[in-house]
Amino acid sequence: MLMRDDLDYIMIKVGFKDYEIHVETYGKGQPLIILNGIMMSTKSWIPFIEDFSKDNQLILIDFLDQGQSSKLVHLDYDQSIQVEALHHVIKHLKLEKINLLGISYGGEVAIQYALKHSEYVEKLLLFNTTAWTSPWLKEIGHAWKMASFSGESYYATTIPVIYSPSFYTSNIEWIENRKKTLIPIFSDKDFIDSMNRLTDSAEDYDKRKELRRLKTKTLVVSSDTDFVTPVLEQKLIVDSLENVDHIIIPNCGHASMYEAPVLFKSLVLGFIKDQTEFKLQ
Amino acid sequence: MLMRDDLDYIMIKVGFKDYEIHVETYGKGQPLIILNGIMMSTKSWIPFIEDFSKDNQLILIDFLDQGQSSKLVHLDYDQSIQVEALHHVIKHLKLEKINLLGISYGGEVAIQYALKHSEYVEKLLLFNTTAWTSPWLKEIGHAWKMASFSGESYYATTIPVIYSPSFYTSNIEWIENRKKTLIPIFSDKDFIDSMNRLTDSAEDYDKRKELRRLKTKTLVVSSDTDFVTPVLEQKLIVDSLENVDHIIIPNCGHASMYEAPVLFKSLVLGFIKDQTEFKLQ
Amino acid sequence: MLMRDDLDYIMIKVGFKDYEIHVETYGKGQPLIILNGIMMSTKSWIPFIEDFSKDNQLILIDFLDQGQSSKLVHLDYDQSIQVEALHHVIKHLKLEKINLLGISYGGEVAIQYALKHSEYVEKLLLFNTTAWTSPWLKEIGHAWKMASFSGESYYATTIPVIYSPSFYTSNIEWIENRKKTLIPIFSDKDFIDSMNRLTDSAEDYDKRKELRRLKTKTLVVSSDTDFVTPVLEQKLIVDSLENVDHIIIPNCGHASMYEAPVLFKSLVLGFIKDQTEFKLQ
Amino acid sequence: MLMRDDLDYIMIKVGFKDYEIHVETYGKGQPLIILNGIMMSTKSWIPFIEDFSKDNQLILIDFLDQGQSSKLVHLDYDQSIQVEALHHVIKHLKLEKINLLGISYGGEVAIQYALKHSEYVEKLLLFNTTAWTSPWLKEIGHAWKMASFSGESYYATTIPVIYSPSFYTSNIEWIENRKKTLIPIFSDKDFIDSMNRLTDSAEDYDKRKELRRLKTKTLVVSSDTDFVTPVLEQKLIVDSLENVDHIIIPNCGHASMYEAPVLFKSLVLGFIKDQTEFKLQ
Repeated sequence: MLMRDDLDYIMIKVGFKDYEIHVETYGKGQPLIILNGIMMSTKSWIPFIEDFSKDNQLILIDFLDQGQSSKLVHLDYDQSIQVEALHHVIKHLKLEKINLLGISYGGEVAIQYALKHSEYVEKLLLFNTTAWTSPWLKEIGHAWKMASFSGESYYATTIPVIYSPSFYTSNIEWIENRKKTLIPIFSDKDFIDSMNRLTDSAEDYDKRKELRRLKTKTLVVSSDTDFVTPVLEQKLIVDSLENVDHIIIPNCGHASMYEAPVLFKSLVLGFIKDQTEFKLQ
Repeated sequence: MLMRDDLDYIMIKVGFKDYEIHVETYGKGQPLIILNGIMMSTKSWIPFIEDFSKDNQLILIDFLDQGQSSKLVHLDYDQSIQVEALHHVIKHLKLEKINLLGISYGGEVAIQYALKHSEYVEKLLLFNTTAWTSPWLKEIGHAWKMASFSGESYYATTIPVIYSPSFYTSNIEWIENRKKTLIPIFSDKDFIDSMNRLTDSAEDYDKRKELRRLKTKTLVVSSDTDFVTPVLEQKLIVDSLENVDHIIIPNCGHASMYEAPVLFKSLVLGFIKDQTEFKLQ
Repeated sequence: MLMRDDLDYIMIKVGFKDYEIHVETYGKGQPLIILNGIMMSTKSWIPFIEDFSKDNQLILIDFLDQGQSSKLVHLDYDQSIQVEALHHVIKHLKLEKINLLGISYGGEVAIQYALKHSEYVEKLLLFNTTAWTSPWLKEIGHAWKMASFSGESYYATTIPVIYSPSFYTSNIEWIENRKKTLIPIFSDKDFIDSMNRLTDSAEDYDKRKELRRLKTKTLVVSSDTDFVTPVLEQKLIVDSLENVDHIIIPNCGHASMYEAPVLFKSLVLGFIKDQTEFKLQ
Repeated sequence: MLMRDDLDYIMIKVGFKDYEIHVETYGKGQPLIILNGIMMSTKSWIPFIEDFSKDNQLILIDFLDQGQSSKLVHLDYDQSIQVEALHHVIKHLKLEKINLLGISYGGEVAIQYALKHSEYVEKLLLFNTTAWTSPWLKEIGHAWKMASFSGESYYATTIPVIYSPSFYTSNIEWIENRKKTLIPIFSDKDFIDSMNRLTDSAEDYDKRKELRRLKTKTLVVSSDTDFVTPVLEQKLIVDSLENVDHIIIPNCGHASMYEAPVLFKSLVLGFIKDQTEFKLQ
C-alpha cells in the first residue's frame, strides 16, 4: 500500500472564527468529502486514500474538537457549528458540487449539511448513521461520558460495542494492539474533554421530520450487527426519503469501513461513479 | 394482577456449603425452574408468576451473589458453583424431571446444568444466551466492572444496552422511574461487588464444543436487536444441537421478557405443554 | 401417536344454504377453531389433534369447496361466503368466545371474520397470511390455475414453493411419497375445479385499511423463507394493529406447521393459554 | 439515455463447433463479461451498457440456446457446454484477465468457469445465484417446463416469482406492458424449447464441494425477497469461500438488476474498480 507520504496531497488549516479546521486533499476529480465518526480523524482513512483519490478529489476533514482541528475548550455547542465549519471549508476550496459521505456522527452532520445546502450536494452517502439522537442513544452517550474518568474505562465502554463479536474475535491480535495504542490517548484529559463535547453536541440532534424534504440522491448502508446505530434507525431514514437506495452488510458491526472494507470501498466508488439514470424499458 | 401475597407460595432458604440459596416455589405440577440474568432476581419474575404457576410448579432461585441468596464475599468462583448450587436445590426439593429455563447468564448456567445432569432435564429453554464468553463479551464485562465506581455510571453502561432503542423510547417514563430505583441500588458497594463477582464468574465460560453432545429437547429464542448476546451467538447454539427449535423476536432487545412478554409467556407455556412427538405423515 | 380413531371426537355436517359444511370437534374446553390453507383439509391437522384438544375444544372445518364440505360447482363466490359459513357453524355449535387460528387462505378468512364478528373472537392467531391479494399474489394464483390442466403440472407449480429449499431437501423421501399421493388427487377434475374456485374467491381480498380498526388480541407468525406470503406482508398486518405480537421462524417455508411443528404447537398452545395482562412494574 | 446505436460497439458471431455464439463488446478497458440469467439475453443489459462500458470493455454474450446464439435443437447438454463456449469466446477475443459477472443461471456458469479457468478470472461477481440445483430448485424447473404448453401459462409460472411483491405492485403498469411483450415470445415453440433445454442443462449442477478450492476474489450479492435463489443459498457459497464479500439488498427480488439498478451498478462498478488490498493498521 502507498503511504500517505507517497501521495500527492495538500494539508491545510482553514481559519474559521477563532479556530482552525484541519483539511487534507488528495488527487483530482469530483470532490468527495468524508466526515468522520466521533472517535475517528483524518488518519482513520489512510488505508482508503489511494483508492478514493484515484479519480476523485478526496477531501478529509477533522471536525472541530477532533484530530488536528482546534479544540473548542469551554464552548457549549451543537452539531450546527460543524455544519457551518464544513460549509466554510467548501466555500474556501471553491467547491461547487460535492459527493458527501458521513459515517455515524459524520453522517448526522452530512444529513444536516444536505438539508441546509442541498445545492452543493451531488450525492449523499450515509453509513451506520441515524436521523436522531433517540433517548436510548442519548443514554449511551452518557455512559461514554461517565466512563471517561480513565483511559481503560473509556476504551472498555466505547470500543468493543463498535465491532461485531465475530470481527472482534477473529482480529483479536490487532484489537489488543489497538487497545495498547488507544488507552494512552483515551487517558489524555484534553482528548477526552473534546470527545465529551462532541458527544454532547449530538444530544439534541433530531432531523426525522425534515428528512422528508430531502431530494438528494442518497445511499444508506446498514450493518446488521451494529450496536450503536442499529438497522431500524437506517430504515427510518430510508422510509423518509424518495431518492434513496438501501443495502445491508451481514455479520458486520458499526465500524463498517474496517469490518467490510471491500464492500465499503465498492459502494463508495460505485455509487459516485454511477451516472446514468436507470429506466425500466 | 395478583400480587405475590395472594399466591400460594413457599419461600425457603436452602443451605449449601456455608451459604444460603433463596428459593421460591409457586403452584403445583411439573417443575419449571427459571434462572435469572445477571442483574435480575426472583423479584424480576413477579409479573409472570400467575401464568407460569397455574399448571406448573414454578421455582424461582436467586443465584449465589444475587438477590436474597448469600453473597460470596472474597470468593473467587466460576459458574460451576451455580451449577452445583442448582443441583443441590433440585435434590433438596426431591425433583426428578424439570423444565429448565435460563435467560442470559441464567441460560449459560442452564446449558452447563443440562450438560452435567441431563437426566434431570426434560426440556431446556434458552432465551438471549450464548454458548461462550467471547473475547468481545469479556470486554463488555470489563466495561461493566469499570463503570461500577458509581451508581449512575453503572446504570448508564449496563442498562440502556439491554433494551432496544424503540422499547426504550416508547417506555421512556417507565425507564426514567426505573433509573431512579436502580441508581441507589447500583450505588451500594455490596451489591456492586456481587455484580462484579458474577461478571467475573462467566469470564472463562466456553461450552461450544460440549454442546454437540446435548440431546435434551431445546428451545432457543433470539431477539433481533439484542446488543449483549446477538442472534449469531444463538445460531451457534442451534447449529450445535440436534433436538432444537429456534425462533426470533423482531424489534426486541436483550431483555425479551419485558419487551415481548406475551411472546415470552406463550413460548414458555406452549413449549413445556407440547407433548406429542410430531411425525410427518 | 394417537390415531383419530382413538380420540373422542364428533364429526358432523352443518347445513348451510344448499350446502353442507364438514366440521370435526375434539375434546373439551375453550373453543379453538382452525381454518385451513387452500390445499389443506381437516385431515392435514391429524398430527396436531392430540395436543390441541387436550385442554381445548378443537374445531376443524373444511371450507366450502374443500375436503368433505360441499363443492360449489358453477358458483362464482368470494371469501365472504366462507366468513358466513364459519359464522353459521359457530352459531350452530352455540359457541360464544373462540380462539380463531388461520393459516394462509384460512388466515385471510380469519381476519375477515374477526373484523365482522369481533365479539366472538377472544384471540386471533395468524400464520403465514396476508392482509390482501396483491397484484403479485393474484398472478401467482393465475399460474396455479393455468397449471391445473394436469396433476403433475399442478403439483410442480403449487407444492415446492410452499416449502423451504432446506426442508424440501432434508425430507426428500417424504416429499417423493407425498408427490405420489398428491398427483392422482390433483388429476381429479372435480378436486381441481374446487381448488380453482377457491383461488378465485381470494382474488379481490383487500382488508389493508379495515385492519386498523381491529382490536382483537392477535399473534402474527412469519416464516423467513415463505415464498407465497413473504415476511413483509405480515409486517403490513403488524403495523396496522395495536394489540399484536409478531414472531419470525428462521429457515422455514410457507407450510410452517409441517416445517416447524414444535414452534407451531408451542405458539398456539402458549398464546391461548397466556391469560394475565402484562404490565411493566 | 444513449441508445445502443449511439454507442461504439462491435457485434460478432463467434463460431463454436457447429454453432455460433452471439457476442457484443462495448468500450475499452479491462474486460467485464456479463452472463445472463436463463430468460435474459444481451438485450436485457441495454440500460446498463453506458455505465458499464465507460471505463471497461463490456462484453455481453448470449448463451447457446439463448437470444441470438445458435439453438441446440435435439442436443442433450449440461452447463459444461456453456463453460466451454465461454472459454472459446475469451480465447477468440484474446482476453487474458477478465472480471466475470453472472446472475442466476449465469452465476452458475461463472462459478464453473472460475473453477476450471481461474487464471483468467480477476474478480468474480455473483448475483442471485446458487452453488447447486437442489431437489427443490429442480422441481421448480419441472414446473417451468410443464407450464411451457402456452405463453400465458409460462408467463404466470416463471415471471411473477422473479420479482418481489412490492416491486411488482409499484410497477404494475410496466409489468402489464411487459406481459404483453412476453406472452407472444413465450408462445413461440422454438423459444420455449430452448428455454426448456437451458432449464434441463442446470439440472445436475452441484459445485458445493469444489467451491472450497476457489481462491478468486468474489462478491456475492443476495436479495432478501428472492424466491428462486433465496439468501441461504448464497450463504452456502459465502461459507465455502475464503476471499469473499457478501451483501444483502433488502426488499428486493430475484431480478436485482431491475429492482435495485443503482445498487447493482454501484456494486459492479465499485467492486471492479477497488484495487488496493486493505490491511488493518
